[in-house]
Amino acid sequence: MTYCVGLLLRQGMVLLSDTRTNAGLDNISTYRKMFTFEQPGERVIVILTAGSLSVTQTTIARLRDAIDSPDANPDTSILKAETMLKVGEIVGNALARTRAEIDGKLAASQQGATASMIVAGQRRGGGMRMFLIYPEGNFIEATEDTPFLQIGEHKYGKPILDRVVTPDTSLEDARKAVLLSMDSTLRSNLSVGMPLDLAVVEKDSFTIGSTRRIEAGDPQFSAMSQAWSQALRDAFTQIQI
Amino acid sequence: MTYCVGLLLRQGMVLLSDTRTNAGLDNISTYRKMFTFEQPGERVIVILTAGSLSVTQTTIARLRDAIDSPDANPDTSILKAETMLKVGEIVGNALARTRAEIDGKLAASQQGATASMIVAGQRRGGGMRMFLIYPEGNFIEATEDTPFLQIGEHKYGKPILDRVVTPDTSLEDARKAVLLSMDSTLRSNLSVGMPLDLAVVEKDSFTIGSTRRIEAGDPQFSAMSQAWSQALRDAFTQIQI
Repeated sequence: MTYCVGLLLRQGMVLLSDTRTNAGLDNISTYRKMFTFEQPGERVIVILTAGSLSVTQTTIARLRDAIDSPDANPDTSILKAETMLKVGEIVGNALARTRAEIDGKLAASQQGATASMIVAGQRRGGGMRMFLIYPEGNFIEATEDTPFLQIGEHKYGKPILDRVVTPDTSLEDARKAVLLSMDSTLRSNLSVGMPLDLAVVEKDSFTIGSTRRIEAGDPQFSAMSQAWSQALRDAFTQIQI
Repeated sequence: MTYCVGLLLRQGMVLLSDTRTNAGLDNISTYRKMFTFEQPGERVIVILTAGSLSVTQTTIARLRDAIDSPDANPDTSILKAETMLKVGEIVGNALARTRAEIDGKLAASQQGATASMIVAGQRRGGGMRMFLIYPEGNFIEATEDTPFLQIGEHKYGKPILDRVVTPDTSLEDARKAVLLSMDSTLRSNLSVGMPLDLAVVEKDSFTIGSTRRIEAGDPQFSAMSQAWSQALRDAFTQIQI
């Protein structure tokens, strides 16, 4: 399993992913699920991935190959595409093609493969956009009404986002919100695990403002997690029914 | 969908269910999912149901028929069974048989039916027991380590239970915990809906201590829901990262 979340706010975008992958419960590994693509000052794209590792790795590799290819053009390279919408389409097409190929191979053993992605970014001359790409390549977009997107194990971490995130949320509060959302998920689903990758992209910066890998036992994250548990218990004590 | 939760505590048991059923998104109804069986002073049993309404209604009807039958005996009637374990087995067998029958009928149109139940109770001479009955009739039991059971849409409401419920939780706090757990679920899943049914069974009372139907717009529940949202937002503001 996986948990990835992205927030699209007036001040910028905040993205967080875990790194746990598992093939069964007895085969757990750590793989990065956050991939960043930049032309500083011109364009920034962050992709978060969930689902079958063979699908997501191959899709990302193909997107990179297309960028590096001598034939790279606005229809094939996410660093040359003329709009973020086109970036979403390129990623969606790459994901759908890879998924269908691997699904076909697995059909031989009555298995299937699926994956989904969050694609967030901004190019000079355009606004910030954030898409959730489905396994078939179609996608939806974050809006003012619903300024966050989640993939993977999304349920445990949704109540806190529903309550505190609006388009006007500051980037500092947004970091806190995604980390607390992840904290609830980590507690309830063993197949979501540390370390975490956090990225903040400020509006109109066209670059990754900050990235941070948060390792298991990170003192700051642990302190936040404990303080949040205590705050919840205190709030619970105060509530009257 | 459905959300039902039961807490097994040293002081007693607290049970809560929603009442929404749906056949598709465009056919929503209200049905009770909490069923109580009592011989006051001797035995009390509460059953919560989730899943296909045709399966759960028929199962409950069969359990009632077995109680009312002139041939009622400790192997067929949950009000005569000699232990709560036997009650769990009778309910499990009735559920498994009903589910298998209805599943067979639906196979003709490539559909299936499934359902699960929580069975909680105490008989004079025995301890309080709480079981989660799976669609196949097997079951697991709440313990000191995990003093709560959930069926239906369990994920949204689990983080609060994980944080505040222990076997030593008071019945008053337990009521609050299940209502807040339900509140998070109602907010996130439209197929879980008001009104709610709440029951409290005190240890060694062998009767339903209190039941309450909480209607949509109930002022006490609404106030609690708003206070909890505010408390969460306040806690969020105070947390440092």
